[in-house]
Amino acid sequence: MIDLYTFTTPNGRKPAILLEELEMPYTIHSVNIGKGEQFAPEFVTISPNSKIPAIVDRDTDLAIFESGAILIYLAEKAGKLLPTETGERIKAIEWLMFQMASVGPMFGQFGHFRNFAPEKLPYAINRYEKETLRLLGVMEGQLAKTPFLAGDYSIADIATYPWVAAAQSPYMELSFDEFPHVQRWVEAIAARPAVKAGMDVLQPTFESQVGTVA
Amino acid sequence: MIDLYTFTTPNGRKPAILLEELEMPYTIHSVNIGKGEQFAPEFVTISPNSKIPAIVDRDTDLAIFESGAILIYLAEKAGKLLPTETGERIKAIEWLMFQMASVGPMFGQFGHFRNFAPEKLPYAINRYEKETLRLLGVMEGQLAKTPFLAGDYSIADIATYPWVAAAQSPYMELSFDEFPHVQRWVEAIAARPAVKAGMDVLQPTFESQVGTVA
Ligand SMILES: N[C@@H](CCC(=O)N[C@@H](CS)C(=O)NCC(=O)O)C(=O)O
Ligand SMILES: N[C@@H](CCC(=O)N[C@@H](CS)C(=O)NCC(=O)O)C(=O)O
Repeated sequence: MIDLYTFTTPNGRKPAILLEELEMPYTIHSVNIGKGEQFAPEFVTISPNSKIPAIVDRDTDLAIFESGAILIYLAEKAGKLLPTETGERIKAIEWLMFQMASVGPMFGQFGHFRNFAPEKLPYAINRYEKETLRLLGVMEGQLAKTPFLAGDYSIADIATYPWVAAAQSPYMELSFDEFPHVQRWVEAIAARPAVKAGMDVLQPTFESQVGTVA
Repeated sequence: MIDLYTFTTPNGRKPAILLEELEMPYTIHSVNIGKGEQFAPEFVTISPNSKIPAIVDRDTDLAIFESGAILIYLAEKAGKLLPTETGERIKAIEWLMFQMASVGPMFGQFGHFRNFAPEKLPYAINRYEKETLRLLGVMEGQLAKTPFLAGDYSIADIATYPWVAAAQSPYMELSFDEFPHVQRWVEAIAARPAVKAGMDVLQPTFESQVGTVA
């Protein structure tokens, strides 16, 4: 049984999607980052960086933070969605790293300066909008060649999807007219039942086959 | 034989340090990002995100970008500096992800707004200085408990060291008075011959036991 500590954000949804894909039983614990619950000492013991998501695997007693590490751990535990052949495996890890190091942080900065910064700073908004579009262009180039980021559907796609969905939402409102392959990819992933369930985590509409809300 | 495409930056130094630690033969190719060489079509074939570092493993013909993926690949190839036991291994990957997703991008934004942005924007400088210090505080908490980030010296330390060294350099000029464990850790890593050689890559002083500059 996996305990998932999370909230309704792109990073928080990644492990929920994977757990749904793997049909692995899990219990959800809400950590309301709007209310500062990520700084509670009990949570910091599990997640020393005071960020969601984090998991505890009750089978092994391991506590893990950083969504990229959680995805690798769960995929390896299940033996699914991360290939074992060296070349295929490193491609999935490469695109997972691209999400962790670039897509997440840069889309996140764009969202911050566009929506939340107390002053509208044109230089900063423009810097991160340009980088977000450049990163979507890198994905477009890759998805013109392969159905999913690393060939077959993998944890690299699961990590990236919630951020690309956010880029299309009112949070960023980017047009995907110049990214037809990304658009095709986003629609294919959005249609998966496990993705729908994982994206719904902690929403009023949440209804999972395997999860229970704690 | 590994072909390493890199330059004199914190991310560019990570694989050079690891290759030196592993005593794995490699050839260095300079990609001068100040001159835009990262956008050359031949390089983009290897590194679709147009960033250094990237490698090509001549033994397997695999091209890999994203420093975190490169470190995992090389450590697994050598069977060193990434533990194989599940719990120890995921701790090293967790702190590697922490570097890739937080330390690198956030220290990098601080450096940008402090040193390179055409306007001095106090809100942005302050945002990233605060986050950089908070992240050093997270490392301080961990290094108070363990000699290295994930227990023993690993690719998590190799990934993080060049960024912490940059935080102490004129590039960021942060004081480490409040981070005595980070200071102890930085000194221990700086003293390693492989780290010295890897940090020196493409510098006039570069002199490696195993590398040749191409
Ligand atoms: N690299 C981390 C990033 C996690 C992250 O940024 N989480 C955000 C929500 S999406 C958070 O917890 N924010 C609360 C805070 O920063 O105080 C991961 O992928 O797990
Ligand atoms: N997440 C990437 C980041 C790589 C990165 O930011 N590289 C910088 C130098 S440290 C670069 O190539 N910059 C050139 C550019 O952005 O055009 C990694 O860790 O490999």
